[in-house]
Amino acid sequence: MTDNFALKDQFAKHLGAEILEIKDGYAKVQLKVQKYFLNGVHTAHGGVLFSLTDYAFALAANTSGETGVAINASIQFIKPAFEGDVIVAEAKMFSRSKRLGTFSGSIINQKKEILAHFNAMAYYKAPKIKE
Amino acid sequence: MTDNFALKDQFAKHLGAEILEIKDGYAKVQLKVQKYFLNGVHTAHGGVLFSLTDYAFALAANTSGETGVAINASIQFIKPAFEGDVIVAEAKMFSRSKRLGTFSGSIINQKKEILAHFNAMAYYKAPKIKE
Amino acid sequence: MTDNFALKDQFAKHLGAEILEIKDGYAKVQLKVQKYFLNGVHTAHGGVLFSLTDYAFALAANTSGETGVAINASIQFIKPAFEGDVIVAEAKMFSRSKRLGTFSGSIINQKKEILAHFNAMAYYKAPKIKE
Amino acid sequence: MTDNFALKDQFAKHLGAEILEIKDGYAKVQLKVQKYFLNGVHTAHGGVLFSLTDYAFALAANTSGETGVAINASIQFIKPAFEGDVIVAEAKMFSRSKRLGTFSGSIINQKKEILAHFNAMAYYKAPKIKE
Repeated sequence: MTDNFALKDQFAKHLGAEILEIKDGYAKVQLKVQKYFLNGVHTAHGGVLFSLTDYAFALAANTSGETGVAINASIQFIKPAFEGDVIVAEAKMFSRSKRLGTFSGSIINQKKEILAHFNAMAYYKAPKIKE
Repeated sequence: MTDNFALKDQFAKHLGAEILEIKDGYAKVQLKVQKYFLNGVHTAHGGVLFSLTDYAFALAANTSGETGVAINASIQFIKPAFEGDVIVAEAKMFSRSKRLGTFSGSIINQKKEILAHFNAMAYYKAPKIKE
Repeated sequence: MTDNFALKDQFAKHLGAEILEIKDGYAKVQLKVQKYFLNGVHTAHGGVLFSLTDYAFALAANTSGETGVAINASIQFIKPAFEGDVIVAEAKMFSRSKRLGTFSGSIINQKKEILAHFNAMAYYKAPKIKE
Repeated sequence: MTDNFALKDQFAKHLGAEILEIKDGYAKVQLKVQKYFLNGVHTAHGGVLFSLTDYAFALAANTSGETGVAINASIQFIKPAFEGDVIVAEAKMFSRSKRLGTFSGSIINQKKEILAHFNAMAYYKAPKIKE
């Protein structure tokens, strides 16, 4: 697990994201919504929600020590997050071929309300596994 | 244009994004990639690219003074951005009904290489226009 | 349930899709892969997989008797289906506001292998519920 | 162009899709909306729109004679198509690395109204080009 490159993520650190759990093909991370994370309607910027879930995805995508990078992602925004909220994102691999992995995830707030649903695909340049 | 709520975006300001152009249903913004924007493979975090393009989208979605918020977005990552790169995102509305608007956009770097392609949908709670 | 408009779907009938289960915000449907469903590499056309899962989605989106139509959908293709395979798609609502519903789903084959993962959003023009 | 595998697409033929144009990384196809293409609200099934645009994509993805298959796709539905409408889908490659290609496309009707916007990614198993 120590060779999971996503552990060195500087942007996640800058935002203040914390790792709650990492296991094979799975990660859960947490972030407190700061005042400077807000958009013009005083809710957490979509980019903050995306960044957190993308961080969970990157951790989950690299638990094997290979380097899988996101080639696409989609996010559905369901409820907003507000200043002071503690939001938790988790991502889980649901399929893997030699070079591609697919992941889904979600973000909840401290009341366990679902804020967003997330899907992404990772591409592994130097995969360890056979097709 | 002064009632475009996205102009008050604190997260965009925090990242250092600058507005290059806003016109009816369109916006172009720019960002310099900082060291603390990097992920574990030393390229700009996907969340940074997403945040910039989402900011362009929010500006473009609200040039009418209505309040349209993202309900979903997808991004395709094509090339990475590196520390010191100046990246430009633009977003353009290509359809609008009473309550929904659809937008596409892209991000390029200073060499005009396409880094990402972006699509999003806005929902307008209190639309001014008729269906 | 008899006012679920998706029950009158002619294209689903044309393809030969069968309903296995419908309950509140959920549907499961089945289809046998015919020779004329194949694409140029002799696997089921992406449009066939999409059509089946979109049918499950439409059934799930309208169990309330309201009329919700898809405004966007994304599909991740994981494994191909072949002639003679019996594929099963299910779709489940995971959030609903007054006018919008979000759904996820998947398709499996007779060996329970996941072939595709699906997400979609429905828009309700004349919702019965309050925001 | 004769080794473009998508030319042998049986499902596209079954639906009655016609090729209007194919050139390097680009394709345009056409389809007449039949009565049995309709869904429960008497508009063309989302799966029909998806199938047509996916066909344009497959043709565009394989003009090099390599075999690129869709790994994901997203579609935004903007306006419905009705029985008798003649709809035209086009798809265009906008990036290509060794193993991945990204494409966008749209569908219009005979009045040139945009019905849907489409994005997809192709994976090339045995690419001819270098990374």
